[in-house]
Amino acid sequence: MAETTRATSAAAVDDLVAAVLSGSRRALARAITHVEASGSEAREIMTRLYPHTGRAHVVGVTGSPGVGKSTLVGELARAFRQKNVTVGIVAVDPTSPFSGGAILGDRIRMRELAGDPGVFVRSMATRGHLGGLAAATSDVMRVLDAAGYPLVLIETVGVGQAEVDVARLAQTTIVVEAPGLGDDIQTLKAGIMEIADIFVVNKADLPGSDAVVNALRAALALGSGKSDYVGHHFLQMWGDAPAHGSHPAQSDGTWQPPVIEASAVKRQGIMDVAAAIKQHRAHLRQSGAWARREKQRVQMDLEYWLKQLMLERLLQQVNRAELSDWVDDIVDRRAAPQDVASRLLERFRQAT
Amino acid sequence: MAETTRATSAAAVDDLVAAVLSGSRRALARAITHVEASGSEAREIMTRLYPHTGRAHVVGVTGSPGVGKSTLVGELARAFRQKNVTVGIVAVDPTSPFSGGAILGDRIRMRELAGDPGVFVRSMATRGHLGGLAAATSDVMRVLDAAGYPLVLIETVGVGQAEVDVARLAQTTIVVEAPGLGDDIQTLKAGIMEIADIFVVNKADLPGSDAVVNALRAALALGSGKSDYVGHHFLQMWGDAPAHGSHPAQSDGTWQPPVIEASAVKRQGIMDVAAAIKQHRAHLRQSGAWARREKQRVQMDLEYWLKQLMLERLLQQVNRAELSDWVDDIVDRRAAPQDVASRLLERFRQAT
Repeated sequence: MAETTRATSAAAVDDLVAAVLSGSRRALARAITHVEASGSEAREIMTRLYPHTGRAHVVGVTGSPGVGKSTLVGELARAFRQKNVTVGIVAVDPTSPFSGGAILGDRIRMRELAGDPGVFVRSMATRGHLGGLAAATSDVMRVLDAAGYPLVLIETVGVGQAEVDVARLAQTTIVVEAPGLGDDIQTLKAGIMEIADIFVVNKADLPGSDAVVNALRAALALGSGKSDYVGHHFLQMWGDAPAHGSHPAQSDGTWQPPVIEASAVKRQGIMDVAAAIKQHRAHLRQSGAWARREKQRVQMDLEYWLKQLMLERLLQQVNRAELSDWVDDIVDRRAAPQDVASRLLERFRQAT
Repeated sequence: MAETTRATSAAAVDDLVAAVLSGSRRALARAITHVEASGSEAREIMTRLYPHTGRAHVVGVTGSPGVGKSTLVGELARAFRQKNVTVGIVAVDPTSPFSGGAILGDRIRMRELAGDPGVFVRSMATRGHLGGLAAATSDVMRVLDAAGYPLVLIETVGVGQAEVDVARLAQTTIVVEAPGLGDDIQTLKAGIMEIADIFVVNKADLPGSDAVVNALRAALALGSGKSDYVGHHFLQMWGDAPAHGSHPAQSDGTWQPPVIEASAVKRQGIMDVAAAIKQHRAHLRQSGAWARREKQRVQMDLEYWLKQLMLERLLQQVNRAELSDWVDDIVDRRAAPQDVASRLLERFRQAT
C-alpha cells in the first residue's frame, strides 16, 4: 500500500481530525486521501467527523461532455467566493479539468481557482471504487462539510445511473445543456429531467440556444418536474415504499425548475444561477424536502455500510480454498450465483 | 405490483424456462421482465437458466452521446445476421433509440431490426436499479445467453463508473468516438482508454476524423492499452489482489486494440468492426483471458448476491421502529452510519 494509507495511530487520527475541524487545508487533503483509500483509518476519521456534518449545501452539476460544466462550476465558485462563501469542488467526472483530464486551456483557467485558499478542489478517480463511487463521493463530500465548507459543488458527467446516484447525494441538482452538440437535447431523451432542480443552457451566445431553452420549457410544462426519487426497490427494502406503485411521490411541492441561459466562458448569467441555487436551498428548507432528502441519504449510507461490513465479516470466516471451489462451481455452471450465496450464508449462520 | 410480476407458480416457472430454452421470443421477453422486477420468481428463473449460460460473446459498445453508438450497434447486428448469427441487444443507454429515447429517424431505422426474428432488443430502464444496474444488466445478458443468442451487444452511454461496471460484464468492449463533438477526444481524457478492446472512429466521412484516429493511435502507442481491470478493492476483498500495488496486472498478452474508421449511417467499415470482434474473441480464448474474465464476473455476481441476501435477512429481523430510531440517530449526528451498521450487526449476531 502507498504511504498515504499506512497504519495511522489513534493519536494521529485525533490530530488529523482536530486539524480538519480547525480549517487546515493540508489536514483536509490528507483526511480525504485516507477516506478514499477506505481503510480502517477512513472509518475512524469519518466517525469522528460525522457529528460535524449536515450543514453544507451540496449542489450536483451534471451534463454531457462538452456542455461546459467545469467552466460553469469554476465560475459559480468564483461568484460565491465574491460573497466570501468558501467552496468545495468534487469532480466525479473523469473528463473534467478538475480531474486533470481536459485540455490545457481549461486547466489553466481552473488553476486560478486553485490559488484561492477559500476553494478546495478534489477529483475522484473512477478506479478502485467498485460499485461504490457514490459512497466514496458521499464520504469526501461529508469531510468537506465537516471542514466547514458551506457549499460543495459536485461535477458529474453525462446521463445515466451514476448521475442518478450522485444526484441523491446532492440537495440541489443542476443539469447543464448547450446548443450545437448534436440533434437532440440529451436530458429530454433520458430520465434526467426528473433529477433536475435547475436547468442551465450554457453557451447561450451560440446559435440554437433559444431552441434548447424552448424545448426544455415545453418539456417542463408537459412533465412533472423533479420528484424526491430515491429508488423504488431501495424504499421497498426499508419499508418506505410509496403505496401507489412504481412512481415515487411528488414531494417537492411548488418548486418549478428554472431554465437559465448562461455563458460561463463569457461570465454571463452566472449570478442568475447562483441566485437560483440560493432560492432552491430556501425552498428545500421551507418545504421540509431538505430533511427528507437527508434521511434518504442516511438510509443509503447505512445500507452501504451494512452490506460492506457483512461481506467483510463473511469473507473473514470463509476458507479461501473453499471459496475458490464455490466460485468454480458457478464458473462451471454447476450452481447459480444466488444459490451459492444462499448456501454460503447458511454455513456462516451455523458457524457463528 | 404490475401483472407481469405477480406470483407465478413453480409449474409456471418450469414452463417459462422450458419455453425460453426452446427459443420462444415471447417466453424470453416474459423471463426478462421477471428478472428485471427481481422478485422471487426472478431468482428461480435465473437459477434454472444459469446452467445454460456461458456461451454468448458479450460485446459492450460505449461512447459519448452523439457518436452514433446505436446506429453502429444496429449495423453490427445486421452484419452478423447476414452470417445467420442471432443477436441480442441490450440498451443500457437511456438516450438510445433502442430505449425509445431518441429522435424519430433513428427509431424508424431500428424498427427494421425489430422485425427480424433473429434479433432480440431489450432496453434497460435506469430507474429502479439502485446501485444494481450492472447486476440487472448481467442477469438480462445471461437470460439472452441461455436462450441461445451467441452474440449479445450491450450499448452504454458516456464515460464513467457505469461504463467501467458494464465493461466488466463484456468480454469485448468497443469504445466509439466521432469527430466534431467538441475540442477533445473524450476517451483520452478519462480512464476509458483502459477498458477498450476495439476503438471505432465513427462518422469517419466527416472532417476531423483523421485527427481523432491519429490521436487515439498516438495515445495507444504511449499507453499500455487494456488491462484485465476489475477493481483493486474488490480483488483485495477476495484475496486476489495483485501483489504490486494499485495497478492491475496486464494479462491480455499481445492484444493491441485496433482503431477502425467507420460510418455506420453509410454502412462503411462495419465488416472491419465485425471482423475485429471475432478476432478479439479468438484472442480471448487462446490467451486464457476469456476464462479469467468469466471468473471475475462470477466473483462480482457472488458478491452482489451475498450483500443482497445478507441485507434482506438483516432487515427481516430488525424491528422497523428500531431501525427508524437508528436512522434518526444518524440524521441527528449522534452516530455515524458505519457505527450504526456495526452495532446493528452485533445485535443481529446475538439474535441468531
